[in-house]
Amino acid sequence: MKSYKELSREELKRLQKQLSKAYEEAKGKGLKLDMSRGKPSAAQLDMEMGFMDVLVSSSDYRTEAGLDTRNYGAMDGIPEAKELMAQMMGVASAEQVIVCGNASLSIMYDTVSRSMTHGILGNTPWCRLEHVKFLCPAPGYDRHFAITEHFGIEMITVPMTAGGPDMDMIEKLVAEDESIKGIWCVPKYSNPQGYSYSAETVRRFAALKPAAKDFRIFWDNAYAVHHLYEEEQDEILDILSECEKAGNPDIVYEISSTSKVTFAGGGISALAASRANLDEIRKSMTIQTIGYDKINQLRHVRYFKNLDGLKAHMMKHAAIMRPKFEAVLKILNEELGGLGIAEWTNPRGGYFISFEAMDGCAKKIVAKCKDAGVALTGAGATYPYGVDPKDSNIRLAPTFPTMEELEAAADLFVLCVKLVSVETLLESRRQMEKKAC
Amino acid sequence: MKSYKELSREELKRLQKQLSKAYEEAKGKGLKLDMSRGKPSAAQLDMEMGFMDVLVSSSDYRTEAGLDTRNYGAMDGIPEAKELMAQMMGVASAEQVIVCGNASLSIMYDTVSRSMTHGILGNTPWCRLEHVKFLCPAPGYDRHFAITEHFGIEMITVPMTAGGPDMDMIEKLVAEDESIKGIWCVPKYSNPQGYSYSAETVRRFAALKPAAKDFRIFWDNAYAVHHLYEEEQDEILDILSECEKAGNPDIVYEISSTSKVTFAGGGISALAASRANLDEIRKSMTIQTIGYDKINQLRHVRYFKNLDGLKAHMMKHAAIMRPKFEAVLKILNEELGGLGIAEWTNPRGGYFISFEAMDGCAKKIVAKCKDAGVALTGAGATYPYGVDPKDSNIRLAPTFPTMEELEAAADLFVLCVKLVSVETLLESRRQMEKKAC
Repeated sequence: MKSYKELSREELKRLQKQLSKAYEEAKGKGLKLDMSRGKPSAAQLDMEMGFMDVLVSSSDYRTEAGLDTRNYGAMDGIPEAKELMAQMMGVASAEQVIVCGNASLSIMYDTVSRSMTHGILGNTPWCRLEHVKFLCPAPGYDRHFAITEHFGIEMITVPMTAGGPDMDMIEKLVAEDESIKGIWCVPKYSNPQGYSYSAETVRRFAALKPAAKDFRIFWDNAYAVHHLYEEEQDEILDILSECEKAGNPDIVYEISSTSKVTFAGGGISALAASRANLDEIRKSMTIQTIGYDKINQLRHVRYFKNLDGLKAHMMKHAAIMRPKFEAVLKILNEELGGLGIAEWTNPRGGYFISFEAMDGCAKKIVAKCKDAGVALTGAGATYPYGVDPKDSNIRLAPTFPTMEELEAAADLFVLCVKLVSVETLLESRRQMEKKAC
Repeated sequence: MKSYKELSREELKRLQKQLSKAYEEAKGKGLKLDMSRGKPSAAQLDMEMGFMDVLVSSSDYRTEAGLDTRNYGAMDGIPEAKELMAQMMGVASAEQVIVCGNASLSIMYDTVSRSMTHGILGNTPWCRLEHVKFLCPAPGYDRHFAITEHFGIEMITVPMTAGGPDMDMIEKLVAEDESIKGIWCVPKYSNPQGYSYSAETVRRFAALKPAAKDFRIFWDNAYAVHHLYEEEQDEILDILSECEKAGNPDIVYEISSTSKVTFAGGGISALAASRANLDEIRKSMTIQTIGYDKINQLRHVRYFKNLDGLKAHMMKHAAIMRPKFEAVLKILNEELGGLGIAEWTNPRGGYFISFEAMDGCAKKIVAKCKDAGVALTGAGATYPYGVDPKDSNIRLAPTFPTMEELEAAADLFVLCVKLVSVETLLESRRQMEKKAC
């Protein structure tokens, strides 16, 4: 394939005409497809129908230690659920874990909220400070950025690389600026790029020397067991152990959930941290809740039995998801490979493919897709404040549609990418000619 | 029975000796009983074992409108759960309701927390104000008071009467003091007295004219359907409708849950409020959560079907709980009736009996019970800051123990009440004689 940038103006114009015609035809089809969010498909959900039937008789409701999960008590989670979640997250000990409700997002929101109103380990509550800032590796997860924006926390973008965020920049910033209180991380199969942090990155995180004593790494290990392949699985170091070794035990909160293991919204979530951090959080939890849903915690333990059970289960998800990723990647490769107008990631896990269009093209591509009936994540969503400075990143979420829908959506997507790219190249040629005159 | 106050010093001394001996004997029995918290008994929990089996096939997981409850979506609750909770709370329309997670306590905590960080309907966030105060009808619910204390909100005690809190005092205080931002209420079968607010009380609440625009009534309708008797059931007016009629639609948040309907910790909770309040809360919810556990919401709807199903179910609870309340009340009547040393309430619903000892006796009674192996709610817990100014109120929670345990606990309790009362009377006689000298 010839790169679009090498095409003459006449060639580009011919191509534009062709592509416009194809786009108008596609529009006429009345598509209604959704590649916008990382949602499990119906096939994935149907697969776990046995999940609801694992608790049946009244003795089933008791933990190994004899606690009745149907009653009050065990505010920070039943022991066997702590164990399962510790294993899932790759945390050394269940004592480092508390198990919460159905959404890890709530753990993160509550943690930021509590830091605002009560501060962390004796430090000034953030709501009393003039400036509070967070570092935001980007492209990243829009809902992380939404939390910090909601609380009026200033966000500073940090570029991502395939081995994790730019650590030189992070080390420098946190050492200099006491108002930097946190950083959002998705260390494994990152949202949206599917990158996993290298051992060096994890160790440099663990060894950070922030000016702020209440600086915290929000380590959202959302895709800890969400591999797409049986072989070739990414693994990351256990951040809690590394922080301990580095003499920095309190610097990190690790969060995860089973929303994309069992049911989205019907799973359980967990927080892993040092004893000092957990003790502080438990104090606040006794005020906030009478305890989370322990029946659902026990249900998870009974269904998976152990980490092996959980891993085997995740391979069933992979069997459904992998062909979808591969289908989208195949279309991207065949249709856009060699054209010099886009790059994309090739993740081995997680829920997304990250797509880089030419600068200034992302919004137009998403808008064109929308007009033709294909919903994508809003352009800019992967950056703080919803503003992608280069307007180039698009997050593709291939899991929810059926295979047929997905292929139709991807076909339309590449068509829009081509059309917007050609139009942009033509426009930039016009601008250059103008300047030349 | 002769009132203790009419007994001579010699008679009191003889009685003290007798009671001390009986107490020492009781202590020797090595009891280990718990009347401290409003927990359902195992018998109540076993009764709902069919609850877990109502969702079985994959089509079962869809709402009437076809939404798959196993996936993301319907952040503020599925329509049929809103309907059920509206009916349970006695709220006119399901549109006034959002359905949340497993704990109404979390709704209340989150609402106060959000008011601290973001303010209510455009008013200054409470964390930026010098003084924030709450009115606290007492005796009341310790966990309410714990939330306001946690956020550094000053608590002002308002006396309770059988028809609700002292409305004269409330009307005056809220009209005068702009820093009073809220009041905690348990309007039906109040915790711990089991009082229900009269129609006049509800109407006066609805018609309040607070100085603070962001004053809110936290209407914790925790025991909306928790009657002990088939006949003789308390009913209260719908506060939301009354507030609307009074031109005060935004003044109230009503909260409830099914923690004591289905499973403690495994239920669903709901918040009812005006459109303006709910819209504001929904905005914040989209940041805090991806949505609550909709599978559990649907499970509740399928299990109860409608309000009649739910009411019938609550009568099964009553059948187990009523004999326990009656057993405790019988022992109180037989052992303490006419002695002039105590009063207690005779509730028709809820989870508690409120006991008034002689002034200065509550702490000693609770300590004596504890020493002999019977756990009661801490004396003072029913007042703000855990300080009962008269040290007289004790909350009795008869539901959790078996009947046999309960009778043993109540026997010990009345023994301790008598002993502490006699000792207190003897001490006050001594003090009076001293003064006379």
